[in-house]
Amino acid sequence: MTEKKNRQITLASRPVGEPTPENFKLVETAIGAPERGQVLVQSLYLSLDPYMRGRMSAAKSYAASTEIGDVMTGGVVGRVVESKHAGFKPGDIVNGTIGWQEYGLLEGSELRKIDPSLAPISTAVGVLGMPGLTAYFGLFEIGKPRPGETVVVSAASGAVGAVVSQLAKIAGARVVGIAGGPDKCAYVKDELGVDAVIDYKAEKDLAAALAKACPDGVDVYFDNVGGPVTDAVATLFNLRARMVVCGLISHYNMPNGYSGPSILRSVLTNRVTIQGMIVFDWHSRWPEGLARLGQFVRDGKLKYKEDIVAGLENAPATFIGMLNGKNFGKTLIKIAE
Amino acid sequence: MTEKKNRQITLASRPVGEPTPENFKLVETAIGAPERGQVLVQSLYLSLDPYMRGRMSAAKSYAASTEIGDVMTGGVVGRVVESKHAGFKPGDIVNGTIGWQEYGLLEGSELRKIDPSLAPISTAVGVLGMPGLTAYFGLFEIGKPRPGETVVVSAASGAVGAVVSQLAKIAGARVVGIAGGPDKCAYVKDELGVDAVIDYKAEKDLAAALAKACPDGVDVYFDNVGGPVTDAVATLFNLRARMVVCGLISHYNMPNGYSGPSILRSVLTNRVTIQGMIVFDWHSRWPEGLARLGQFVRDGKLKYKEDIVAGLENAPATFIGMLNGKNFGKTLIKIAE
Repeated sequence: MTEKKNRQITLASRPVGEPTPENFKLVETAIGAPERGQVLVQSLYLSLDPYMRGRMSAAKSYAASTEIGDVMTGGVVGRVVESKHAGFKPGDIVNGTIGWQEYGLLEGSELRKIDPSLAPISTAVGVLGMPGLTAYFGLFEIGKPRPGETVVVSAASGAVGAVVSQLAKIAGARVVGIAGGPDKCAYVKDELGVDAVIDYKAEKDLAAALAKACPDGVDVYFDNVGGPVTDAVATLFNLRARMVVCGLISHYNMPNGYSGPSILRSVLTNRVTIQGMIVFDWHSRWPEGLARLGQFVRDGKLKYKEDIVAGLENAPATFIGMLNGKNFGKTLIKIAE
Repeated sequence: MTEKKNRQITLASRPVGEPTPENFKLVETAIGAPERGQVLVQSLYLSLDPYMRGRMSAAKSYAASTEIGDVMTGGVVGRVVESKHAGFKPGDIVNGTIGWQEYGLLEGSELRKIDPSLAPISTAVGVLGMPGLTAYFGLFEIGKPRPGETVVVSAASGAVGAVVSQLAKIAGARVVGIAGGPDKCAYVKDELGVDAVIDYKAEKDLAAALAKACPDGVDVYFDNVGGPVTDAVATLFNLRARMVVCGLISHYNMPNGYSGPSILRSVLTNRVTIQGMIVFDWHSRWPEGLARLGQFVRDGKLKYKEDIVAGLENAPATFIGMLNGKNFGKTLIKIAE
């Protein structure tokens, strides 16, 4: 092991607007050895998620920014190589925030053990990981759909949106998905089984298309994108509608943020509740969420789609593409077999 | 009585942008006689409120629009002239939605009897009426300030904002008021007793002035105005801040609504809750609110300021001025002694 190097992708510079390959740097370092309580993990699947764009900026966000020269942050499913923690042994499959690198040294307390017999291990950073839990808690704790209500989901084919769409259907709601392009829309309609789908790239008048797809208005809006899509949905809010602000991917690459029509008039008139969320707000309840989601997956009620690209070196380009909607499903980098 | 005419102000045409005197029409009609269950009321004080601008538009709002030719809607404190309802007798002081007219015929069930021994009767459409109740329920049911938290109030010298400012102080919060002009700001600081006040008309960099006035950020924002003031406050939200959307007076005269920077990024990052409200949402609890507010007034803990203009014929100009912030305190039209 000591001869092999650890390849890492670090933040080389902060992007202004859209990230470019020059904002990232591939470096090689030595693979460390675990101290007491630590575990050395080899990365197998790296999760790429929109929130990482926020970490690349110096601006305040959920968590501290990634510093220049630091390894890019990210959730990983990996295999234990060496353990000095009683809870883990070599060969164990684990999930932790290892970041964009081939090997990571973490405290055992920061790792979650994955049972490979329950589901493919890659799902631990997808439908049975943060995106799935984000959908579960955001939809049921904030959105609170009732049977018969209309739930609109943006980025409905994405890692979070696809789970929200299906959970809302399971909960008896009428679900309208928004996605970009015919392939994603066909997937959302035919595979995920929503009631109507809107291709935001194809519609000239998004508000009109939404109005047609939501004849009874919108009771719950699960927002992953922000921007003009959100502006259009806001025109259709029903009395006491709930809007979950989970992501704003259309804003992230705008240096000065997005400007548009205020949605507060609709909020006032319809007494809408808007709430921002992050999955860590329900950390103590993750086991509940994972148990439910796992059962739905095993019962065939919850489908998922992965967009897997091989090779750590391809992470920057894949990430840049994802921010532009080029991914189709949960974006993963396969780092090792 | 039958000889005397009833003067009314009706909606002559719908305003585009700012209302003009031509949008209103003064007409004279016969004074009706009450049928069984009805009460004839002579208007004494007419309340002018920003929400009335919404009723002048055809667009969907809380309630149905006022139709062209209909009497302008509005809350009134009046005196019973003739009653065919067992609960009221001539001379009783009552509050009801009589509108912009000298006499109104209402069902007794639509009237609330006012006890003139408890407080000046004009307060029944002010601090002890809808504006006061709006402040009470909006602040405590949605804003939920804790002692030591920072509460920001826009239009802090207005009918609702002045009550919010004082209730938040009573609740132990640090209160920052926003008002327009030195007179209103002095009133908010010296009479209402807030901790800091900002003159939004005088500050070139509102966000910077707010940041200075709110060194610990903003936990509760009670919004009566919207627009750039709200955009500035949103930059200072703390984790789990609450924003009460009570009014958006800066938007009402904009034919296409207000456009500006999206505040959703701050909502997402800080997991903010934004909620729109109308006082009718707590209709069953009004007695509780009125009892509390009345006690605070009698104890001298809750001050109020009235801006009274005499003569129904002056209502349109006074209303137009109020939408531009020309009022100072709760705007009332004195219709009769």
